[in-house]
Amino acid sequence: MDTIDLSGPTDEAIFAAMEPQEPGDFANHATPLIRHCWYACARASEIGRTPLARKLLGIDVALFRTEAGAPVAMRNRCPHRSFPLARGKLVGDRLVCGYHGMEFGPDGICAHMPALTQAPATATVQTFPIADRGPLTWIWMGAPDLADEALIPDTSWLSDPAWGTVTGSFHIKSDYVAMHENLIDQTHFPFLHPGTVGTPEYARSKLSVSTENNQVVIRRELKDAPPPGVYGKPANIMHKRVDRASEARFVSPALHTAFASVRDPAPDPGQPSLYRYNITHVFTPETNNSIHYWWFNSRDYRPVDSEIDKFMFEAHSQAYHEDVEALEWISEVVRTDGEAQFDLSFAPDKPGLMARRIMYRLSAKEAR
Amino acid sequence: MDTIDLSGPTDEAIFAAMEPQEPGDFANHATPLIRHCWYACARASEIGRTPLARKLLGIDVALFRTEAGAPVAMRNRCPHRSFPLARGKLVGDRLVCGYHGMEFGPDGICAHMPALTQAPATATVQTFPIADRGPLTWIWMGAPDLADEALIPDTSWLSDPAWGTVTGSFHIKSDYVAMHENLIDQTHFPFLHPGTVGTPEYARSKLSVSTENNQVVIRRELKDAPPPGVYGKPANIMHKRVDRASEARFVSPALHTAFASVRDPAPDPGQPSLYRYNITHVFTPETNNSIHYWWFNSRDYRPVDSEIDKFMFEAHSQAYHEDVEALEWISEVVRTDGEAQFDLSFAPDKPGLMARRIMYRLSAKEAR
Amino acid sequence: MDTIDLSGPTDEAIFAAMEPQEPGDFANHATPLIRHCWYACARASEIGRTPLARKLLGIDVALFRTEAGAPVAMRNRCPHRSFPLARGKLVGDRLVCGYHGMEFGPDGICAHMPALTQAPATATVQTFPIADRGPLTWIWMGAPDLADEALIPDTSWLSDPAWGTVTGSFHIKSDYVAMHENLIDQTHFPFLHPGTVGTPEYARSKLSVSTENNQVVIRRELKDAPPPGVYGKPANIMHKRVDRASEARFVSPALHTAFASVRDPAPDPGQPSLYRYNITHVFTPETNNSIHYWWFNSRDYRPVDSEIDKFMFEAHSQAYHEDVEALEWISEVVRTDGEAQFDLSFAPDKPGLMARRIMYRLSAKEAR
Repeated sequence: MDTIDLSGPTDEAIFAAMEPQEPGDFANHATPLIRHCWYACARASEIGRTPLARKLLGIDVALFRTEAGAPVAMRNRCPHRSFPLARGKLVGDRLVCGYHGMEFGPDGICAHMPALTQAPATATVQTFPIADRGPLTWIWMGAPDLADEALIPDTSWLSDPAWGTVTGSFHIKSDYVAMHENLIDQTHFPFLHPGTVGTPEYARSKLSVSTENNQVVIRRELKDAPPPGVYGKPANIMHKRVDRASEARFVSPALHTAFASVRDPAPDPGQPSLYRYNITHVFTPETNNSIHYWWFNSRDYRPVDSEIDKFMFEAHSQAYHEDVEALEWISEVVRTDGEAQFDLSFAPDKPGLMARRIMYRLSAKEAR
Repeated sequence: MDTIDLSGPTDEAIFAAMEPQEPGDFANHATPLIRHCWYACARASEIGRTPLARKLLGIDVALFRTEAGAPVAMRNRCPHRSFPLARGKLVGDRLVCGYHGMEFGPDGICAHMPALTQAPATATVQTFPIADRGPLTWIWMGAPDLADEALIPDTSWLSDPAWGTVTGSFHIKSDYVAMHENLIDQTHFPFLHPGTVGTPEYARSKLSVSTENNQVVIRRELKDAPPPGVYGKPANIMHKRVDRASEARFVSPALHTAFASVRDPAPDPGQPSLYRYNITHVFTPETNNSIHYWWFNSRDYRPVDSEIDKFMFEAHSQAYHEDVEALEWISEVVRTDGEAQFDLSFAPDKPGLMARRIMYRLSAKEAR
Repeated sequence: MDTIDLSGPTDEAIFAAMEPQEPGDFANHATPLIRHCWYACARASEIGRTPLARKLLGIDVALFRTEAGAPVAMRNRCPHRSFPLARGKLVGDRLVCGYHGMEFGPDGICAHMPALTQAPATATVQTFPIADRGPLTWIWMGAPDLADEALIPDTSWLSDPAWGTVTGSFHIKSDYVAMHENLIDQTHFPFLHPGTVGTPEYARSKLSVSTENNQVVIRRELKDAPPPGVYGKPANIMHKRVDRASEARFVSPALHTAFASVRDPAPDPGQPSLYRYNITHVFTPETNNSIHYWWFNSRDYRPVDSEIDKFMFEAHSQAYHEDVEALEWISEVVRTDGEAQFDLSFAPDKPGLMARRIMYRLSAKEAR
């Protein structure tokens, strides 16, 4: 555990304070994508009996379900003449190529080639381990023998009826490293999101940061303060002073979670004393410079309430849209500016740098 | 002559059965374009007294006719300051550059430079041998001393009044190698063209394949079968059983022809016993990944019949559009997928592989 | 001083007649951009209290004014996380980054970082010397210690009330070297601008060319000739014979000026005997293949006359649009043609070649 003093040192001092490393030892937009990780490939409801084509980690993937409803992910490229298999059709559990009619079972093995009396033994299309978890379906695109469903990160609240959830999605022209850094950085709230979350005082408050198991966690507490609108308004406690706590976590290259709570020390009769909010940011690099992004905002009270839903959806859509826009602007600068720049870092950047260092090491490990 | 058993072996066995070769010895989308070949540059009717700009084999070409009607092809780039000459105008038989008024005769030699009292001896724009043949005009972009009009492939039926012809064209975002392979491959008919040509049985029938003079020919016969709609309907013989024969030929990198015939063993009084169809696929790479494509469908009966014309145009436009769409999808996968793929091949691919090997060798020969 | 005989020799002879040089020793579209030069970055009126983003010499620049009205140019990229600063906002004289609220003064030094109690000493954004001159604002993007405002080229007539000026602008997809060559070349007038300036005889007339201090000047005189419409019509002297003189000057990579005069030997009572026209072509490469272009056409008589303004604006907009279109066509050919071409040159190209040689040497000097 490490408590960051935000009035603290600039980059050289931070870097020195972190574990020994080579300069430049942080992932950025050019770092090879990390493959050994469970990523969301789609909302579970998007995958059905009409094959869905989606580019994930630079690879074209075809997604569909068997007649029994099991999700299947296979490379969206026939091994024969590179026809995109998702343009074909499903016959039973087999995906039939639209060019020469080759049929591939859910295991990717060619079960039938119409122009041949026997299916060719060598013809196989790569499949990927895939699993449904609540509203999302997850894929593993690393070495198949390392795919362990126990590693799919926990997002169980998304399918818990005690929680009310709103959700949205974006296709972003930016890199996922910058996205992770953005999410674990709360010092940008008052500037990029002036209408929704945070105040300059909050941005300057101390926080603790720790890493374990390739995760980065920051925790922050604020006692006896007015609630921010996004949490106070739906709970009808804007007139009160509350205690706030939040934990933001870089869970994996595919997931960032933020758990926030607001404690009302003197609840009205019949009202809760604790309001919890789980925010789930799920994203998968399409390429090094584009991201599939799904977000979820869950609350542990009044789970079925269309007015709260509407408020939460609009408030968070707006904030995430501000992030998306900013990241796309930055990405355009990085890609088109005539001179490269080595960005400076400061004490409050430490959580983001810790996440970027984890990503850098995961990527470097795969390259070896 | 070589008879392919379509129930036959997979790629290694095919490759072994073919003449000795290096692995990868087949043209693909990346193979340098073949220049020593007569290609169609335009429909003859497109070339007139207004210069036409067209990119052919990666080179910008200006096409026009002299006052006497002779076609002229010259590089669409003034040798002085690279102005596209087709943006200029014709004065008599000279193409006048729109920038400084340099005038080039049909021989490409600068005949006049207004700012100089004498035309500069060194100023010449490259011209290309060019010749009209019926509805098409052909160009030679290889070494000029090797241009031999006798090598322009025969398409004489296109201007024979005994034949009725319908025609269409496409600009395709794909490579011409994949296009050739598609055309000489009939096993895709039932899958890509379910509404028009072929049946699974036809796709599995034996065919003979042979090569001679850098051409590949496949021949197929089917006795006592129902006619396919595209041939039977216009001839009004859908209720009969017929004998079919077809020959598909990779003629050159610029041309694929298919000659099909349907024999009615018991013709009605006054009706022919033989119906012939010549299909002419003409294409010219614009670049490695784009093609100018003109197609012609000719029949040797009722040459002037607008109803048959309409039927033939619609049926074939549909089928060729399916090919074009499939090839563009494949091309997009090949260009954008994050991992390269070495496509597998099977026995029925042998004709296409033979054509691709010829193209590979023609290209390699030019590179030496 | 050197008088060019336009009936003269072709390229080898010209090149030989010029000072000793290496072959290829002329700037073209691929020559690295020259940075040690004052370029216009914007019309002075475009720069205000809302930051303006503009790419100049390949670099993203943010332009704004202090509360006192002084222009400021800084790199449009926060040194912290590359956010484009022009997307932020001005607070007093500080540009505030829209991402984390870093504040940069007009000197580029970070004056405040909200998440830190002290501004980080290392955080500075690059600023560029900048100065207003009449309707334009000029920027120096070379080594700052070499920025000398005395080197900003004279365009004082643009803010002289004795001169009436019309102005327009273009964003051009071409290279600035070709633009310079176009402007100092008058032999293209009758072909590219048949409706406005020049005649074949004028194009063939002798001119003198000289270089001094990295400038190229061509001068031309024509006695007892009808005035060209663009100059004669606004002066109401189309029925007379006049003496014409013109000087066209490659002033710097950022500027071309043309001073033309028409002398009426027998002026009507109350009318001037001399009519002067200053044409100012200002351009700044955005990249090697795109240009910001501003033009001004000034006359030294009837400075406030909306009818003359309208005539001058329309006539010159038309002519410059013809140049822009031609240069964009050429640029497209040069960028996309499958085979490179070494353009031929002739005697009348000497002024343009002299300018291109100066640019080549300036660029090469910077590379050392």
